[in-house]
Amino acid sequence: MRDRNRTILLAHGSGSKISHELIEKKLVPPLANPILCRLDDSAVFELNGSRFAFTTDSYVVSPIFFPGGDIGRLAVCGTVNDLAMNGASPLYLSLSFIIEEGLSFEELERVLDSIRDAAVEAGVSIITGDTKVVNRGTADKLFINTSGIGAVMDGGNISGANAQVGDKIILSGSIGDHGIAVMSQREGLRFSVPVQSDCAPLNKMVAGMLAVSSKIHCLRDPTRGGLATTLNEIAQQSDVGIKIEEEKIVVHDGVRAACELLGFDPLYVANEGKLVAFVAPEDAEKVLEKIRQDRYGGEAAIIGEVTGDHRGKVVMKTRLGASRIVDMLAGELLPRIC
Amino acid sequence: MRDRNRTILLAHGSGSKISHELIEKKLVPPLANPILCRLDDSAVFELNGSRFAFTTDSYVVSPIFFPGGDIGRLAVCGTVNDLAMNGASPLYLSLSFIIEEGLSFEELERVLDSIRDAAVEAGVSIITGDTKVVNRGTADKLFINTSGIGAVMDGGNISGANAQVGDKIILSGSIGDHGIAVMSQREGLRFSVPVQSDCAPLNKMVAGMLAVSSKIHCLRDPTRGGLATTLNEIAQQSDVGIKIEEEKIVVHDGVRAACELLGFDPLYVANEGKLVAFVAPEDAEKVLEKIRQDRYGGEAAIIGEVTGDHRGKVVMKTRLGASRIVDMLAGELLPRIC
Repeated sequence: MRDRNRTILLAHGSGSKISHELIEKKLVPPLANPILCRLDDSAVFELNGSRFAFTTDSYVVSPIFFPGGDIGRLAVCGTVNDLAMNGASPLYLSLSFIIEEGLSFEELERVLDSIRDAAVEAGVSIITGDTKVVNRGTADKLFINTSGIGAVMDGGNISGANAQVGDKIILSGSIGDHGIAVMSQREGLRFSVPVQSDCAPLNKMVAGMLAVSSKIHCLRDPTRGGLATTLNEIAQQSDVGIKIEEEKIVVHDGVRAACELLGFDPLYVANEGKLVAFVAPEDAEKVLEKIRQDRYGGEAAIIGEVTGDHRGKVVMKTRLGASRIVDMLAGELLPRIC
Repeated sequence: MRDRNRTILLAHGSGSKISHELIEKKLVPPLANPILCRLDDSAVFELNGSRFAFTTDSYVVSPIFFPGGDIGRLAVCGTVNDLAMNGASPLYLSLSFIIEEGLSFEELERVLDSIRDAAVEAGVSIITGDTKVVNRGTADKLFINTSGIGAVMDGGNISGANAQVGDKIILSGSIGDHGIAVMSQREGLRFSVPVQSDCAPLNKMVAGMLAVSSKIHCLRDPTRGGLATTLNEIAQQSDVGIKIEEEKIVVHDGVRAACELLGFDPLYVANEGKLVAFVAPEDAEKVLEKIRQDRYGGEAAIIGEVTGDHRGKVVMKTRLGASRIVDMLAGELLPRIC
């Protein structure tokens, strides 16, 4: 405990309780302003009568290539998704490389090809960039930062603080695929059912959802810390209770097997191509239908709802009918997953 | 030469010829679009009738604290300056940390204080952020990315491609201070005249300049690669010749002594609080006067002019009256200076 207060630990980057503490108690206070303090996936600001979203993420995933994607695809999709989660249409990205001396041109070119393909798929342009090279041993092959600007679409006020009692909670597909895919690659594990990262841009899915409903209150992609942590964040930001049903949550066989073997709970494993949407009950079915029509939404389901009970907490009805509190990730589960 | 084509070298990040090759031949082609291909310090785009600038930089300076600044001040000033160099008024920054496990909270807090102070000085708000932590030994204490959005001020079309024959070239002060300050700290060198980094936000200087002249054609801050590299970039982008006079260029005694001792040419040493302005001759004196009134511009001087001769090249009249071609930085001079 003493050490936790004196130096940075891996867990400070995990999306867990102690990362939230670091952000809320150390990083935000000296820089505080009303936009930053909202702590949404992206910051929304108004300029000359238009509303824009702005977001940044650094990607340090290890290894840089993994089944279903690589650091390049991740860097585009992650930032595109952070914009989409505020109801913004992604327009422009920046791209900044920190390269360890000795990275091969072949690897760099593979990553660039993935960046290009993901940007084309998402319909965004990379318009500015930067390249730094550091000595061998002072970075791990390649880190990438992407920042992004989007135009906020009409469709109400989408924010993690805006979930309403009665809202239905839609999850766009299976959970845990990305985290397990990266971890298996890193540790050299092979499972009988191979697991692929779900890394994907969700902006077209979100645009479709906003086209059919103006009652989407909250959107978020459950990345670091997994679905459990994301739902806890929203329960706290919106000061509501969240009820979910375990049997509605899709976990692919390979992910389930890997989690059982390794003692992970898929609720805490990172996703990179999924979203949760909090939608007014009268619009939930049509939003669900729209998500299911998207190439990344075929397994979407309503997994629960918002309640006025147990505010700030997430409660799950298990397959056996019991109820259990689902807490935020406590420490470090899988480091360097994104 | 063979190795240069197969793996990334430190020199690829130096701002030298081979970094330009990497950017122009490898990084830009797969992502090419008209805005990116301009290769200015920031990208200018139009949205809903307003013009915005967008820029990104990752900071990997080693050590993270140095005389006259630290990585936090650098990360704010560098990005603010990249916006200002396109005639944009900086509005919002993002802030992304890659922290090596084991960094002390005390160091992190010092850096945050510097970030806050520099942001207040520049008048920008940090509205979105990200924190990643990587294992001990896979990053060097702390890397920071800042990206920034600015509103382009009225004042014509400022671009590295816009220098005109006849333009006067104004340099806002002494050169080489930042590079020598960082290098001395890193190597534990002490000089009889201490050298401080010039790291500073230049957006207020630029706003003042644009208020007195609409004939500022090109602005750039001579960071990596130093004044020589910056002037070469502009000579090439604008397809003009550049003539400068050595005796007009201010080099502080400490920097001169350090450069003599170590065999560096101050023309190639990085600055973080200086700009060069290319201004129509009829406006040059009033722009110079305005720069001199700024707290960071007291030593500003006209150091040369643009000519139709020797297009794409920079020629310097030396103190002894000879002329010599000043080329772009060829390899690596001082790694990890920003």
